[in-house]
Amino acid sequence: MKKLRVGMIGGGGPQNFFGGVHRRALHLDGTRELVAGALRRTKESSLAAAVELGITGYGDYMELVNSGEELDYIVITTTNDAHFAPAKACLEKGIPVLCEKPVTLTVKEAVELAGIVKKKKVPFILAHTYTGHPMMMLAREMVINGEIGEVRKIESWYNQGWLADNIEKSGAKQAEWRVDPERAGLSCCGGDIGTHAHMAARWVTGLETVRVSARLNTFVKGRKLDDDFNAICEMNNGATALITATQIAIGYKNDNGFKIYGTKGSLEWAQERSGCLTVKFGREDKVYWIGAGYDYFPASIKPYLRLPAGHFEDFLEALANLHLTMEFTVRKAKGEKNIPKAYPHPSAGDGLAGMKFIAAAVKSSGEKGAWVKIPG
Amino acid sequence: MKKLRVGMIGGGGPQNFFGGVHRRALHLDGTRELVAGALRRTKESSLAAAVELGITGYGDYMELVNSGEELDYIVITTTNDAHFAPAKACLEKGIPVLCEKPVTLTVKEAVELAGIVKKKKVPFILAHTYTGHPMMMLAREMVINGEIGEVRKIESWYNQGWLADNIEKSGAKQAEWRVDPERAGLSCCGGDIGTHAHMAARWVTGLETVRVSARLNTFVKGRKLDDDFNAICEMNNGATALITATQIAIGYKNDNGFKIYGTKGSLEWAQERSGCLTVKFGREDKVYWIGAGYDYFPASIKPYLRLPAGHFEDFLEALANLHLTMEFTVRKAKGEKNIPKAYPHPSAGDGLAGMKFIAAAVKSSGEKGAWVKIPG
Amino acid sequence: MKKLRVGMIGGGGPQNFFGGVHRRALHLDGTRELVAGALRRTKESSLAAAVELGITGYGDYMELVNSGEELDYIVITTTNDAHFAPAKACLEKGIPVLCEKPVTLTVKEAVELAGIVKKKKVPFILAHTYTGHPMMMLAREMVINGEIGEVRKIESWYNQGWLADNIEKSGAKQAEWRVDPERAGLSCCGGDIGTHAHMAARWVTGLETVRVSARLNTFVKGRKLDDDFNAICEMNNGATALITATQIAIGYKNDNGFKIYGTKGSLEWAQERSGCLTVKFGREDKVYWIGAGYDYFPASIKPYLRLPAGHFEDFLEALANLHLTMEFTVRKAKGEKNIPKAYPHPSAGDGLAGMKFIAAAVKSSGEKGAWVKIPG
Amino acid sequence: MKKLRVGMIGGGGPQNFFGGVHRRALHLDGTRELVAGALRRTKESSLAAAVELGITGYGDYMELVNSGEELDYIVITTTNDAHFAPAKACLEKGIPVLCEKPVTLTVKEAVELAGIVKKKKVPFILAHTYTGHPMMMLAREMVINGEIGEVRKIESWYNQGWLADNIEKSGAKQAEWRVDPERAGLSCCGGDIGTHAHMAARWVTGLETVRVSARLNTFVKGRKLDDDFNAICEMNNGATALITATQIAIGYKNDNGFKIYGTKGSLEWAQERSGCLTVKFGREDKVYWIGAGYDYFPASIKPYLRLPAGHFEDFLEALANLHLTMEFTVRKAKGEKNIPKAYPHPSAGDGLAGMKFIAAAVKSSGEKGAWVKIPG
Repeated sequence: MKKLRVGMIGGGGPQNFFGGVHRRALHLDGTRELVAGALRRTKESSLAAAVELGITGYGDYMELVNSGEELDYIVITTTNDAHFAPAKACLEKGIPVLCEKPVTLTVKEAVELAGIVKKKKVPFILAHTYTGHPMMMLAREMVINGEIGEVRKIESWYNQGWLADNIEKSGAKQAEWRVDPERAGLSCCGGDIGTHAHMAARWVTGLETVRVSARLNTFVKGRKLDDDFNAICEMNNGATALITATQIAIGYKNDNGFKIYGTKGSLEWAQERSGCLTVKFGREDKVYWIGAGYDYFPASIKPYLRLPAGHFEDFLEALANLHLTMEFTVRKAKGEKNIPKAYPHPSAGDGLAGMKFIAAAVKSSGEKGAWVKIPG
Repeated sequence: MKKLRVGMIGGGGPQNFFGGVHRRALHLDGTRELVAGALRRTKESSLAAAVELGITGYGDYMELVNSGEELDYIVITTTNDAHFAPAKACLEKGIPVLCEKPVTLTVKEAVELAGIVKKKKVPFILAHTYTGHPMMMLAREMVINGEIGEVRKIESWYNQGWLADNIEKSGAKQAEWRVDPERAGLSCCGGDIGTHAHMAARWVTGLETVRVSARLNTFVKGRKLDDDFNAICEMNNGATALITATQIAIGYKNDNGFKIYGTKGSLEWAQERSGCLTVKFGREDKVYWIGAGYDYFPASIKPYLRLPAGHFEDFLEALANLHLTMEFTVRKAKGEKNIPKAYPHPSAGDGLAGMKFIAAAVKSSGEKGAWVKIPG
Repeated sequence: MKKLRVGMIGGGGPQNFFGGVHRRALHLDGTRELVAGALRRTKESSLAAAVELGITGYGDYMELVNSGEELDYIVITTTNDAHFAPAKACLEKGIPVLCEKPVTLTVKEAVELAGIVKKKKVPFILAHTYTGHPMMMLAREMVINGEIGEVRKIESWYNQGWLADNIEKSGAKQAEWRVDPERAGLSCCGGDIGTHAHMAARWVTGLETVRVSARLNTFVKGRKLDDDFNAICEMNNGATALITATQIAIGYKNDNGFKIYGTKGSLEWAQERSGCLTVKFGREDKVYWIGAGYDYFPASIKPYLRLPAGHFEDFLEALANLHLTMEFTVRKAKGEKNIPKAYPHPSAGDGLAGMKFIAAAVKSSGEKGAWVKIPG
Repeated sequence: MKKLRVGMIGGGGPQNFFGGVHRRALHLDGTRELVAGALRRTKESSLAAAVELGITGYGDYMELVNSGEELDYIVITTTNDAHFAPAKACLEKGIPVLCEKPVTLTVKEAVELAGIVKKKKVPFILAHTYTGHPMMMLAREMVINGEIGEVRKIESWYNQGWLADNIEKSGAKQAEWRVDPERAGLSCCGGDIGTHAHMAARWVTGLETVRVSARLNTFVKGRKLDDDFNAICEMNNGATALITATQIAIGYKNDNGFKIYGTKGSLEWAQERSGCLTVKFGREDKVYWIGAGYDYFPASIKPYLRLPAGHFEDFLEALANLHLTMEFTVRKAKGEKNIPKAYPHPSAGDGLAGMKFIAAAVKSSGEKGAWVKIPG
């Protein structure tokens, strides 16, 4: 099976945070490969980043799009104000796009882009990452299939605390642009994380928000945009949705989740415990916790599961960390510079200790629990 | 940065379970690449699997080891009885090894292998995957650094239920070899999962088990090996360790974890909630829950974290699922066969809906909570 | 110490649900005694209930109030529409009142009653039971003392599912009056449980709600009152409060709790896990779980704690159940009728078994873990 | 219904810890009354305590037993060494006994006492309080009724940390006698809390421990008895039980619970979350959390439930705290001394605020969410 060839617009070099996240996700399955990119704002720095990543570099997105590279899709992970133009360019060239959220900076741009997607029929995926969680997908299947009946009420939320103080004044780059109307658009808290709560409410239920009554607050003095977002919505089936988000909830990191109440049952999910889905049915007073990988998953989701029941998806990162220890060890041995110290993960001696322990335990058990010395 | 070139012994084709897990972990960071393998027991099937994976195939592990391929390390993920010989071959050739657990089938083999590793100084890592969890690493750092004082007592456990019935008689391959002394060695439950509990007790504390009193049970009739394992151990500092495991705990998937009690505090971790570490200090009666990615992590662990606070490691799989949707879409469009159906992850229209929602909410808030229609 | 003498208006006989709850709470400490009551709506049934309870009966509340009985306080636990008149009568007679919520049926009555309390200075306590939870009291102390700084945002909620269907049509008495405007007043969901969420928001913070934007829904057809309640409020310090409640959340029993976000930290509590308070301070990224009975409790709350750390308050009911087993046994032996079957709680033989077990364990440990027979 | 008349041996005055716990449990239901006691070791102090409690005092237990008082049962809550003699005296007089655990100080005494109970057929209940938790009772019903099949393995534990240091040397009375062989008997940790773990293993399953292999540790220097207890047991059906306890687990208060694995399913309970029972059945991969008061409870347990679903038993203490506020207020007004300060629980003004809030919310909702001022 040939690997898919993927290009990237934005995403910087090896140290870039969100570029790195996309690259890891892109490479995870070993079936997709990053081959080319226009990675930064200037030609020079773009090319330098490409060298660091070992891929073909282009000076800007138009060069990449027009390069003639055989690309199966392009990932756009630029700042919000730089989604529209490259997305449009890709789509017009017929190249599928996986674009970071929000889709564009303005409603006007989004209308145009959605129109192009519709007309050109080029695949376009918006990186609302949480919708990739198997449990969120399972929740959607259950709701769409009517397992909880008609939806009456939705609560979806996203609470963070990192903007509780004026950190944009002390050099926090992630904060700086989010509170700046020029770069973030109409809303800070609503646009950044309220949209996740909004997407959960819509995507999981298949319903649409039709009317809204909202109260946005700016608690930290001097900010031009909201840092707290509260909305009561009407869905297109008459249901009510409470869609809330805040960035001033000290100590909360990514308290993102939803509850959905239907005429037959209820569902509850939270991303900080993403491997579980709570389901409450009828009047039987039983509460189910569904764990990742279990047999409930319908055929539509099974291709997205990578592990058997009881192993949460982070098992892969844990194993990858052992590969990383090997990588650090090998690179160090090759004389590469700036390699982090390899962590002392178990080695052959540890394996031997385990073997001796089991042998001694088997012996002790055979001798009715006699204490057996484990040879050193 | 050049990708590391990795070989694989065992691991089968694209559908193989544990080979697939290793391949995903191997590719996760985009800095390592599987390039060659001796993937199955026969030459023919090995070569076929390599074709499917798009890598260079070899007929058996000796061919691979002697091929002259430039390999940075080799992953061994064969059955337990086929760890020793290939591991030895790699090490003698100077090729670093990342080997699945248990290290070998017998203590004798393990002694020999540990000796070679020690003598040759070739890197060897044993895939006790749980030791790669950042929280388990953090627990180790805290204990080793004396934060909970001298260790007095350890409880470590691993409870599963999948062998509660005689499923080896009904064609469950994973069960068949584990209950067969020829292929599994001295112990089923102890060897398969008791070793994880044992490794946790040793690796996290830096202590060694020196004496053991054990009771192994075989609850399912007809089995030749244990399906339940209980041991009370003495550690080399005089501490007591309870190391237990069972495979007959119906409904338990991978209830693996540990508690460590020291003279200054206690620690608790469980793999089914791997992103949290519970710490109890002194007599202050406060309990801390430490979440993944937080500032506590010492420099020794930071290189192993891929995400900021509050995002558990499975965030990467969630995002990878969006890439997967794109992959399925693209491969289908290319006319490839047997591609699973792409899941309807958010697209441009969904992004547009979000933009409209935020704009309407901002408007409503500006009008003191008036209900604002969201344009369709 | 002389027991306080307590009277009761409403509350019925031994089988009455909420009368029974009050009587248990009243008797819990052994320092208060129910001595007299006007327990039901008619004279005859009132007197009969009093006989059953072994207290002095009165035909109606005026008889009780004017009886000249020495009463330290009176508990009013009638239906909502019958709080005002007896409360007024007690207060005018100078008798302290512990009254079930809501305080009255109408705002007008409540204004008058609050006026009398203020003028007469007679003690009046409203039975918002949740405010009696030590952890909710501790939360209040922490907020009032400024430990989380200035309050910015409050979320308080109460989710139930028991009115998800039209159960008032099938004879559920508790449902019947709550959906009847004559007996329940202006609101069903808001009045019944929204008030708990509202009280939490006010009482814990010491703030007052000053403006509100609300959406009440009636999801079950044919109802005259709301079964779902959503409000965004402004507090008198400018904070925003989300106060929500629903009775259509299938499977939710009493999902009642609050989160409070201040300029220095956050607090979280839920009545379904009432023995814990979650506290998140500053930017230190640590989360504390405070367990019942611990040393944190300030002097103002300590008199309200009955147990040491780690024992939740339900320990008392567990012990009371052993007394109940004794009671059932004794009453049965006396020939009393309709006594439930005594549950086989541990007896002397069980105690003996325990003694033998410990003796055998001490012996085994002395013999290095030898298996020791426990005599039958 | 006449209240039962209860006597008490030991239990001290109003400030006594465990005497107070028994008195609260005794009075909880309002159907039992403490009337007489021999409360302390000396005649004088016994009589003084009785005066403080407002009951009839006796100089010692023989005086009480022979007093001719009409007593329905007697509670014995003396130190361990003073259980046997009074229990024997009561039983020989035909008075039912509810006795604190352990049943006696020595096995010899326990044999004799169990013999008397058997011969005389006088009710005797041993205060293993945890067996009174409805969820522990439900667990027992489920196991006894075969719902989880034949029991294969039991884990029961009790972890505390309060004896992690040498606190008996610094005046901690509760610690002093527990580490003293004269007063505590053969074992400290095993006898004090290991017995709870042992009782859980036996009582919930109806099985008996028949053989044991144990390791007891004394971690704190200078102690004569164990502060850590570990036992592997054989049950009379061949099952294995791990029965463990420790008092050196810093930060753990009363981490007491059990897991039971049968041929058809598993059960799990912990006293620090006593209102939940986790049940895992067959291979269906579903996990149920059963909450207190739900419909599952069989007829044998229903008489022991005091509240409806979703209200945990501590609801009663919360309500009792409001009665306590009233009590403090009333006693203070009467001029009684040393009354703690009444906590500001909600009063009429708070009730009025709630009424106004609901009225304003109803108005706002009627006006499509317009912001409505709540009158002050």
